[in-house]
Amino acid sequence: MLVIAEITVDKLDTGRFISAKVKEIRAAVGSGTAINALSGGVDSSTVTMLGHRALDTRLRTVFIENGLMREGEPERVVGLFRSLGVAVEVVEARKEFFAALKGLTDPEEKREAITQTFYKKIFGRLVRESGAKHLLQGTILTDVDETVAGIKRQHNVFEQLGIDPQKAFGYRIVEPLIQLRKDGVRVVGKALGLPAELFERIPFPGPALAARVIGEVTSERVGTVRTATAVVERRLASLKTFQHMAILHEDRVTGMRGGKRDFGYQIEVRCWDSTDAVAATPTDVPFARLRRLADRLTSEVPGVVSVTYNIGSKPPSCIEAV
Amino acid sequence: MLVIAEITVDKLDTGRFISAKVKEIRAAVGSGTAINALSGGVDSSTVTMLGHRALDTRLRTVFIENGLMREGEPERVVGLFRSLGVAVEVVEARKEFFAALKGLTDPEEKREAITQTFYKKIFGRLVRESGAKHLLQGTILTDVDETVAGIKRQHNVFEQLGIDPQKAFGYRIVEPLIQLRKDGVRVVGKALGLPAELFERIPFPGPALAARVIGEVTSERVGTVRTATAVVERRLASLKTFQHMAILHEDRVTGMRGGKRDFGYQIEVRCWDSTDAVAATPTDVPFARLRRLADRLTSEVPGVVSVTYNIGSKPPSCIEAV
Repeated sequence: MLVIAEITVDKLDTGRFISAKVKEIRAAVGSGTAINALSGGVDSSTVTMLGHRALDTRLRTVFIENGLMREGEPERVVGLFRSLGVAVEVVEARKEFFAALKGLTDPEEKREAITQTFYKKIFGRLVRESGAKHLLQGTILTDVDETVAGIKRQHNVFEQLGIDPQKAFGYRIVEPLIQLRKDGVRVVGKALGLPAELFERIPFPGPALAARVIGEVTSERVGTVRTATAVVERRLASLKTFQHMAILHEDRVTGMRGGKRDFGYQIEVRCWDSTDAVAATPTDVPFARLRRLADRLTSEVPGVVSVTYNIGSKPPSCIEAV
Repeated sequence: MLVIAEITVDKLDTGRFISAKVKEIRAAVGSGTAINALSGGVDSSTVTMLGHRALDTRLRTVFIENGLMREGEPERVVGLFRSLGVAVEVVEARKEFFAALKGLTDPEEKREAITQTFYKKIFGRLVRESGAKHLLQGTILTDVDETVAGIKRQHNVFEQLGIDPQKAFGYRIVEPLIQLRKDGVRVVGKALGLPAELFERIPFPGPALAARVIGEVTSERVGTVRTATAVVERRLASLKTFQHMAILHEDRVTGMRGGKRDFGYQIEVRCWDSTDAVAATPTDVPFARLRRLADRLTSEVPGVVSVTYNIGSKPPSCIEAV
């Protein structure tokens, strides 16, 4: 197994790190072209900036619309990078993702379906069509740790799992952020010109809103958790926590509307204090604010009758439920 | 439909109420005998005291051990009533209840299975064997309201549902508390000599811990929520809230133990402020206390990796999840 030399944020010389990685990317890609998928999160945004600094127009950046993104996300991300001089191409793939997710309830099977659809189907096709032989990827050290420990099956650490991405998917992965953790990535992203709005973004999982739906991931259920996520992000953004999220449960609970029984949905809100996602504790949000948030969720998200707030820590909990 | 004249707690003349109800019970039962089932909750405990005042040994009080009770409950209830001079007979029926609940996940079907097992099977048999023609029952006005509104299918309001209990089950139901709400019952229970420990008890639902398990009710799953309930009651009793509870979810969530992924259980804690259970808001428990509670639950209840706290209000939530 590859041993990765961690660069902690206090040891990080940002300027040197960036020029070293620019050189590494140029050396790896040579005179060829590269491709990368931008999700709009901190990691993939930082890799996009780093890649364009190294390769300019020889890097093609795509945003795959998988139907699992947050409200207004594709437009927001494309507009933001356009203002930074980076062209991002939106690839429509909603039908393919929901078809792959149909009937699946096991979290591992869901992740696997998204991974396979993303890499093998959509991205593999794009890479073959583009002629690019290199994929830039925003893997960070925490992803590697969690995958090695068997906690998560990360989609972006094939090499650490002993899978040869060249054999499996037909291209090579370049991972310039693999020595960093989230705090280091934020510093690098800022130095590369990402606006505060983006480099300060709370982490968002690879499978996007599919990771926020317990049970089957359908277009309707993603719609429910997308609306809930927008409410939670709007109401809790000013807290500046490490991460906050809405999770749609599969369990139905008893509620009442208009004096009648209404067997409805439950949304779980999680809000984490953490520096590196390895350990995390729930944020002490003032209770009046949590109650107002619950009122917003039950009135603005169709079908929701119950709202809970996570009070467990990681470990033994994980940050995401799925 | 029968119109019931509510007696609010501020209008309640406790002494007059008790002597009127004692007379009514004597008039209804005549020279015969009666039987009642004691669960250990406020309502059935108050009815037991009222019934024994009216009928003395002509009332037979049974405690049906359905396997769905809280930790140490049968022993506690029997001992307490023995100290009040009331003999309570424990009837073993665990196997019959779990057999009836096997494979059921729908809350209504679960309630119905418990109702049928309780009334038709166990209680019907006891009544037939005892020769008693009257059943004393602790129905209160809130039960009637919620059943009429279609929010809940209460097991103890046959008449309000248009079901003739004499035809259906072979006996008559006497409901001396039907004009009261929970606060009124507490006042009456205290006047009848119930100890603070009992008349101040938080409400506990008819289907007992089966109402605290989302999904199938097995002996193992009831065991999990029984342990969680004991932890929650021990940790939150001093808050003197209207009600507090632990709910075992059917949804499984990702956790980690010993550095390894552990797909485990989630416990939801609910703690309600209310006067009459018609409307309720979640209690503002200090966050440090909630976090300690979550730590206790994940360390003391096998398999639990995640704990949430309810932040929604009734309505649109209900007090119980199932």
